Amino acid sequence: MKIGIIGAGSIGLLFAHFLNDHHDVTLYCRRKEQADAINEKGIKLINKDIRSVKKVSATCSLKSLVKEQLVIVAVKQYGIRAVVDQLKNVPMNIPLLFLQNGMGHLDDLKTLPYTSIVLGTVEHGAYRLSDHVVHFTGCGRTILAMYRGKSELSFTFAKQLSKQGFPFEATENYEKMLMDKLIVNAVINPLTALLQVKNGQLVTNPYYFQLMKSVFYEVANVLELTDQDDEFRRIVSICEKTGENYSSMCKDVMEGRQTEIDGILGFLLKKAEGKSYPLSLLKFLYNAVKGME
Amino acid sequence: MKIGIIGAGSIGLLFAHFLNDHHDVTLYCRRKEQADAINEKGIKLINKDIRSVKKVSATCSLKSLVKEQLVIVAVKQYGIRAVVDQLKNVPMNIPLLFLQNGMGHLDDLKTLPYTSIVLGTVEHGAYRLSDHVVHFTGCGRTILAMYRGKSELSFTFAKQLSKQGFPFEATENYEKMLMDKLIVNAVINPLTALLQVKNGQLVTNPYYFQLMKSVFYEVANVLELTDQDDEFRRIVSICEKTGENYSSMCKDVMEGRQTEIDGILGFLLKKAEGKSYPLSLLKFLYNAVKGME
Repeated sequence: MKIGIIGAGSIGLLFAHFLNDHHDVTLYCRRKEQADAINEKGIKLINKDIRSVKKVSATCSLKSLVKEQLVIVAVKQYGIRAVVDQLKNVPMNIPLLFLQNGMGHLDDLKTLPYTSIVLGTVEHGAYRLSDHVVHFTGCGRTILAMYRGKSELSFTFAKQLSKQGFPFEATENYEKMLMDKLIVNAVINPLTALLQVKNGQLVTNPYYFQLMKSVFYEVANVLELTDQDDEFRRIVSICEKTGENYSSMCKDVMEGRQTEIDGILGFLLKKAEGKSYPLSLLKFLYNAVKGME
Repeated sequence: MKIGIIGAGSIGLLFAHFLNDHHDVTLYCRRKEQADAINEKGIKLINKDIRSVKKVSATCSLKSLVKEQLVIVAVKQYGIRAVVDQLKNVPMNIPLLFLQNGMGHLDDLKTLPYTSIVLGTVEHGAYRLSDHVVHFTGCGRTILAMYRGKSELSFTFAKQLSKQGFPFEATENYEKMLMDKLIVNAVINPLTALLQVKNGQLVTNPYYFQLMKSVFYEVANVLELTDQDDEFRRIVSICEKTGENYSSMCKDVMEGRQTEIDGILGFLLKKAEGKSYPLSLLKFLYNAVKGME
């Protein structure tokens, strides 16, 4: 399959590296230097066991997007609007797959005229070490669900894209899928960004564990979760599994980049507007991360 | 006057340096290396305009405490208990002056059998650069008030100790004096420690300003302040005046030392126990700083 990936951050590089084995991937970068570096040196992936370089073609021009059979949008949530403007040259029958965190981008997708829009949540841990090098810190799954279009399509894509060591799954309900991820992101990301700690420390440090618990309950109230204890256990288990990783928001703050706080806590605060949920901690974390940006 | 100063942190060094001009100061240190360094090299004070070294005698033995005419306790609030045990050799008529932040140490003082106990709040900005060097980052006042004993005594001491560039004042009401300082410490210190920023950023960064405001209102509620707007303006003005300083708690966290969080937020949380004030942010900040220690 001819796949275009827009955005060459950690997730774009990671997906290009893995999907290029069985597909014909083009990576669309914003900066020419990055496209040049990738074309010249390939995409290098590093983790404990692997150090592998794969040739992937990269470009700054969006012209060839029209030839793709699947376009994966792997920019950050706050970059969506700029990409959406550029997508107008893509034929409307080409399926689009959006991989953003949070739910803040759904409003932007509503107005897109494409017939098939897939959403995905990425559980992998990865961060970019340089323009063409990505550190793969933890393997999870990518889950797909249709936002618009035939439900089978997400299952077909999951089957086509899945490979050993880089699994895809599909699910029916995109809202539940995004929500599950949002809860995790809302609790782990802002806290680790503020405290500048690895995910695991939220569980191993008893004081941070208290913080996580109290933030979780505010999130759970806003989302009116009924199975709060189960949900909390799920988050704890994710912190444990990804204990040695820095969350993407923590990395963003460390490296002075914009974060996805608007799509995550911003979304929750907007959702809670006019209701009487206790929100002090979510507001506090929102302002703290905004202030750090 | 023969003055003993117990504790050779930033405040102990600062007071020894200034008071030794007109008084006979002995600085009581915990570590022999520090006493040796001070005896050998003097206490060096650095700020924008001044670089001065003064000879001050330092010792690790508390034997000569019995000869002092005033004993200043300049250890951190959490070090009070250990010092109180050592004070039992000091004659009970020697006045003691305690310079701790917060109000957490008042319980420890209650049981002390001394006839004259003075409390002081220090507005100076200072931090220790090495065992015998202190950075004087901002000149404020030291305010004295009697905790126990004749009220005139604090005024007499203020007059005796005050000197050009290192002023002392006295006031009648020790509770109001400590409370004024506690409010400032409760709002500025934990926030700056958590965010790792200078005091001024709480005012110049609009997001941090929101954080400060919301933390202030929780503090103001617990303390049932009636003049909340005036109080908030006072805190803002202190942030502005000390804009280039890191708070002592921020410094403590940066340098991996224990903080005074128990005497400050711990005290407020205890005070609010069983009442229905909103406390999410104070609890959050307490756990965050505890976790960082």
